[in-house]
Amino acid sequence: MPSHTAPRPASGAESTPIGYFTAANSADVVIARMEGCPDDRLKTIMSALVRHLHAAIKEVELTTEEWAAAIDFLTRTGQICSDWRQEFILLSDVLGASMLVDAINHDKGGGTTESTVLGPFHVENAPRRALGDSICLDGIGEPVLVRGRVTDEAGRPIPHALLDVWQANGDGFYDVQQQGLQPEMNLRGLFEADDEGRFWFRSIVPQYYAIPHDGPVGRLLIALGRHPYRPAHIHFIVAADGYEPVTTHIFMPGDPYLESDAVFGVKESLIATLRDLDEPAAAGAGEAPKRVVEWDFRLMRRRAAPAEPLS
Amino acid sequence: MPSHTAPRPASGAESTPIGYFTAANSADVVIARMEGCPDDRLKTIMSALVRHLHAAIKEVELTTEEWAAAIDFLTRTGQICSDWRQEFILLSDVLGASMLVDAINHDKGGGTTESTVLGPFHVENAPRRALGDSICLDGIGEPVLVRGRVTDEAGRPIPHALLDVWQANGDGFYDVQQQGLQPEMNLRGLFEADDEGRFWFRSIVPQYYAIPHDGPVGRLLIALGRHPYRPAHIHFIVAADGYEPVTTHIFMPGDPYLESDAVFGVKESLIATLRDLDEPAAAGAGEAPKRVVEWDFRLMRRRAAPAEPLS
Ligand SMILES: [Fe+2]
Ligand SMILES: [Fe+2]
Repeated sequence: MPSHTAPRPASGAESTPIGYFTAANSADVVIARMEGCPDDRLKTIMSALVRHLHAAIKEVELTTEEWAAAIDFLTRTGQICSDWRQEFILLSDVLGASMLVDAINHDKGGGTTESTVLGPFHVENAPRRALGDSICLDGIGEPVLVRGRVTDEAGRPIPHALLDVWQANGDGFYDVQQQGLQPEMNLRGLFEADDEGRFWFRSIVPQYYAIPHDGPVGRLLIALGRHPYRPAHIHFIVAADGYEPVTTHIFMPGDPYLESDAVFGVKESLIATLRDLDEPAAAGAGEAPKRVVEWDFRLMRRRAAPAEPLS
Repeated sequence: MPSHTAPRPASGAESTPIGYFTAANSADVVIARMEGCPDDRLKTIMSALVRHLHAAIKEVELTTEEWAAAIDFLTRTGQICSDWRQEFILLSDVLGASMLVDAINHDKGGGTTESTVLGPFHVENAPRRALGDSICLDGIGEPVLVRGRVTDEAGRPIPHALLDVWQANGDGFYDVQQQGLQPEMNLRGLFEADDEGRFWFRSIVPQYYAIPHDGPVGRLLIALGRHPYRPAHIHFIVAADGYEPVTTHIFMPGDPYLESDAVFGVKESLIATLRDLDEPAAAGAGEAPKRVVEWDFRLMRRRAAPAEPLS
């Protein structure tokens, strides 16, 4: 008896009536062990995970060396994570898991604005800015006016909706990827629509960019013969009292990566218009934008009940 | 155009003829993106992984909050890994993935000694010891003699087979878990069988022990209503020229956790005998063992071709 006296299992408790583990019964044996799980939802999730994980391992007849490589990959992916880098979100993104979770949870139909991935670069508490302000603090890139309205499903304006905006700079990097190089909170801002649901602010025309590809996930992409590029976009979280918030992007038209986004985030309905401004730009400091991105957000009334299950 | 000029994709290259990503076509879209993967085996493995991962997510209708909890779990699992701690191997072990990989790769049949998990506590270059030596350097625990023979499938001795042995101490910890507390290389040793394939050494009677359960994997086990205990065992890697090496344990009979090993490592064929010694123990320093573990290893001739695929 070891000195860390462990409770002996009650007679028959946690025994495996289906027998010892074999390749044939493997998932059943592991799932049977969760019998006493007090959390039904956790049990459901972990049972599905075990069943599919075991099925995948059997299907490809994973070798011991490949298993060791997978352990090493996951370990390196965890170790490169920091306050400013989330390599497991990136992994989820490039495997399409993030977009799938998004699709399952926001399959709302109707004419409201579709959602897409949050991505790893959102920051809480972006600075509050006034309508017309520029979010570009380093003056690099082609100035652009971004404007539109926030409405309900019927096109009625939602006054004072809140818009949380962020995008990469002219070199394809977010401020958090270049601390010390970019001004803090560069290309981020929180805007409140006016009492007719209108918003407008200044920024730069976004460019396609590469997701971080100097880590384990980037090397996996290369090994898979995939490129790391995302088509040009601006991130938004739009929220208003009484409506479902939407986390989404608007994409620039004509981008060469619209059909091969490394994280599968593109939806046809999210491709915005970008055109020359034919009237004088809104007043403000810096170079006046000659082009405008136009986009209206349509929010869905908040649901009382949880989302419909995926059919 | 960003200053990090990326190659524009060739016309049609990496486009998604099956359309943009949706919940319905999600796995197909991701797998189609690997079309240019130069490594067929990697493509096979990642395609199976994507298909099963997406199926599991859809099956349980994973919520955004649950997805975030999974990302957080994986991140913490990676971050707790160190030179002396491998939490992802532990995760693979408690999900039965390690045993499944073992079963697939060592489904050799016949009367040879079955394999089981390596576990996270093996150390390369354990000290070479002479037959009869004790591997217990701290003198804690009930002394035991361990002896047997290494033979081929027909029971013919394999002279000078090598045995790499390791086990937990009387408190249920491996030396690498208690650096500074246990002598270095406590309860480890490398033995060479004599010219009749016989081996004998002294140790302590192993006790059941808890796998590390102060980290994310241990907390998952508790949340699943599972205990962290492994039945008492001694680890062996047995190797000889011309034979397949075997990584295995021998388990102590009568252990309360034989039927609920936290890592599913038990096979009925690996339960050894433990009995009173009825003759004087082999000479050596320290208290003379009054009990003996007896066990013969049978090795399989090395195969020329790779293992048969799992049927
Ligand atoms: Fe982005
Ligand atoms: Fe062990």
